[in-house]
Amino acid sequence: MTKITIYNEFYHEQTEEKVREVYPQGIHGALADFLRSDENEVRCFTLETIEEITDEVLDDTDVMLWWGHLRHSAVPDEVAQRVRNAVLKGMGIIFLHSGHHSKPFRLLMGTSCDVSWREDGDMERLWNICPSHPIMRGIGRYFELEHEETYSEPFTLPEPDQVLMIGWYEGGEVFRSACTFHRENGRIFYFQPGHETFPIFYDPNVQTVIRNAVEWVKPMYRVEKLYSPHIKKIGEE
Amino acid sequence: MTKITIYNEFYHEQTEEKVREVYPQGIHGALADFLRSDENEVRCFTLETIEEITDEVLDDTDVMLWWGHLRHSAVPDEVAQRVRNAVLKGMGIIFLHSGHHSKPFRLLMGTSCDVSWREDGDMERLWNICPSHPIMRGIGRYFELEHEETYSEPFTLPEPDQVLMIGWYEGGEVFRSACTFHRENGRIFYFQPGHETFPIFYDPNVQTVIRNAVEWVKPMYRVEKLYSPHIKKIGEE
Amino acid sequence: MTKITIYNEFYHEQTEEKVREVYPQGIHGALADFLRSDENEVRCFTLETIEEITDEVLDDTDVMLWWGHLRHSAVPDEVAQRVRNAVLKGMGIIFLHSGHHSKPFRLLMGTSCDVSWREDGDMERLWNICPSHPIMRGIGRYFELEHEETYSEPFTLPEPDQVLMIGWYEGGEVFRSACTFHRENGRIFYFQPGHETFPIFYDPNVQTVIRNAVEWVKPMYRVEKLYSPHIKKIGEE
Amino acid sequence: MTKITIYNEFYHEQTEEKVREVYPQGIHGALADFLRSDENEVRCFTLETIEEITDEVLDDTDVMLWWGHLRHSAVPDEVAQRVRNAVLKGMGIIFLHSGHHSKPFRLLMGTSCDVSWREDGDMERLWNICPSHPIMRGIGRYFELEHEETYSEPFTLPEPDQVLMIGWYEGGEVFRSACTFHRENGRIFYFQPGHETFPIFYDPNVQTVIRNAVEWVKPMYRVEKLYSPHIKKIGEE
Repeated sequence: MTKITIYNEFYHEQTEEKVREVYPQGIHGALADFLRSDENEVRCFTLETIEEITDEVLDDTDVMLWWGHLRHSAVPDEVAQRVRNAVLKGMGIIFLHSGHHSKPFRLLMGTSCDVSWREDGDMERLWNICPSHPIMRGIGRYFELEHEETYSEPFTLPEPDQVLMIGWYEGGEVFRSACTFHRENGRIFYFQPGHETFPIFYDPNVQTVIRNAVEWVKPMYRVEKLYSPHIKKIGEE
Repeated sequence: MTKITIYNEFYHEQTEEKVREVYPQGIHGALADFLRSDENEVRCFTLETIEEITDEVLDDTDVMLWWGHLRHSAVPDEVAQRVRNAVLKGMGIIFLHSGHHSKPFRLLMGTSCDVSWREDGDMERLWNICPSHPIMRGIGRYFELEHEETYSEPFTLPEPDQVLMIGWYEGGEVFRSACTFHRENGRIFYFQPGHETFPIFYDPNVQTVIRNAVEWVKPMYRVEKLYSPHIKKIGEE
Repeated sequence: MTKITIYNEFYHEQTEEKVREVYPQGIHGALADFLRSDENEVRCFTLETIEEITDEVLDDTDVMLWWGHLRHSAVPDEVAQRVRNAVLKGMGIIFLHSGHHSKPFRLLMGTSCDVSWREDGDMERLWNICPSHPIMRGIGRYFELEHEETYSEPFTLPEPDQVLMIGWYEGGEVFRSACTFHRENGRIFYFQPGHETFPIFYDPNVQTVIRNAVEWVKPMYRVEKLYSPHIKKIGEE
Repeated sequence: MTKITIYNEFYHEQTEEKVREVYPQGIHGALADFLRSDENEVRCFTLETIEEITDEVLDDTDVMLWWGHLRHSAVPDEVAQRVRNAVLKGMGIIFLHSGHHSKPFRLLMGTSCDVSWREDGDMERLWNICPSHPIMRGIGRYFELEHEETYSEPFTLPEPDQVLMIGWYEGGEVFRSACTFHRENGRIFYFQPGHETFPIFYDPNVQTVIRNAVEWVKPMYRVEKLYSPHIKKIGEE
């Protein structure tokens, strides 16, 4: 059983008719829909219930998904730190789309995580550059999204462990759209698709990547922190 | 002219006779002594004057050195953020010894940066594992420090760009003692030697490494931040 | 079912009484003994039968283990290329001890893969620096080998993806003893313990690491090579 | 004084009128033209004179540039090994365009270094994703080449140290167009622009990148190989 915790700020869906039409149950609802299964147990939190993301919840989570955008700054600093600490202890996490600017992602990366962007509904073609990586299982040479918000390099990240996909936009931009990282005991996946006004999370390829990523970031086992001054010296009894 | 800014918390030197004897002018004084030259202009700050490390000072700094230990938590969060931001913009920085747990280092790394340690005055042999790296110029196969505080793995860092030296301690420990990183436009060097009770910063090999590192982390040129939504699309006039 | 193919040059065991006593069935025999199980099917080859390591055998192999030492140069170039190519296609491989200088390892790394060494039977303590990595499952803070050949840095490798263990030797040396790499579709693990005159492959920690590594380098699935000039251009029907 | 050695197979220029028109003095001639200066001494070799690229020449070279395409297989294996060895000892090297498939590049990388391609004269826009890297000095957010051969991912490389530019092609492809590596003591730069039928090497941005890269791959100093069994053990006199 994989225990999945989804955070979605759930703001656009309540303030913009266009977004509500695409995601009537919220982005978290759409994510939960395709992740929920006999193997996966899914819980959802929104900005309204964010204080309920306690250490107990995180200790009981294998994989977290994070979607946020306009309300990043409303996320309490303590919750952001809690999430970061849970990742360092071993919880897997997936940051979706505008989650690149969320507090926990920036805390984990250490950089500003800025991107350039355009909202013109460009077609995006996402190229699979690591076809044997477990997250790319079932993905061909590339897949396309008819309309997506354009994100553009430079994306001010620390060097990813691996870049799995590079996005091509019809207006002339490129973007490192799928990146893996590890920080201490936790695995991190950033995935660019997922603008709120397009039905991205219903796309079968996007769902395949996210499902694979849940398996990949999930901790295999938990470790206790191994530091202390009490090391047995050579020659000590 | 390289503009160097040294921060040393300057606490042990005032509270412990033993440390004052080793560093009568403070650790910052010892660092400044061997770095000051016709090519290098050096300024020093201590915990008492830390609020004077303003954005203006950092904008006018090529390379910062940071030594801190028991008083990490007294460093104001705004100063730590300021230093982090200056690195992301391009300022080079060198963290010495217990600086691994300083606020700016942890902000830049995103991890807890923990180590294990012992204070038994072990002999340390530092192995040069990247002999052609500019920071290793003039360093042979290894060099030794007669007495040093023991630091031990696991050192909970993000993967360094390169590990330049690995330390061997007579009591049985190993440590990644010299590590390079880059974050956005800034270069970062972590160097483990430098416990306050031993005359480490008078050691010629340690001085060579630090002098080389100043040259290596120094920005070659400054860049303006390149992000914004105003990208000229293909086909636009 | 994991299909494992072991190559051991099987030279010392036939020419040195001391080695025969430690490994009466050969090093391959000792490896096969603890790897063979209901989940693992094991085949062994030696220098005498090396020509039988055909493409068919490699296509039918999930994970290869390679132990060689004095007879590296007797390995036919075609076999070395075949093994390299199988790794690039997805076969996992584990190089043990003096396998650092084997032809397939050097082909895959691109560097000379040199080490320094001493044969004084030093005690080695291997530090676990990535406790949450799947290969480190079940390994504590460190483990010790009473006697091992000493290998010393610099180890002229390309930067590993991750260094999992650093070895400490009582005579004063350090070594990156457990390193992961990926090349195209294949995963590679280098593990330093395994000198022929000591009973290293009977050590429970060494066996745990090798068993875990078999699981970790094993391909999750096989991919077809994705290159060709026949990409559907944007706008093409 | 930087000693530069250019290898160009000089085949297309002699067999295709179209190429001769673009590069009447050969591609090596065009490269030498903008590299030759008071600080740079330039020597050129072609497939006809390739045997003259001796160890003496390479020992006397700081930076090599390599352009080859249809005649890769005609390069003698000993010359390819010689070049690889010189890089491992510290010589810098720049592989241009179809040099991704040259023997020395593949020897150094260890992988097949395959790409997909199309010859439709697409417009390429090259994005600068590491604006503060010394090789990117003087390069803006991106630059464009009116016509270039299309190279497409996956590019089967080992993970580069840094990807400096990503290419966008109007037909829908992306490519890691500027990549840095180091192998032992040598620095390596791969740069994708440079198809023989287009005047790429006259482009001021391309020239800037190559000039910067010469400075960046150039060894700062030469090291002696540091391996041998003769390490002074702890406690030895």
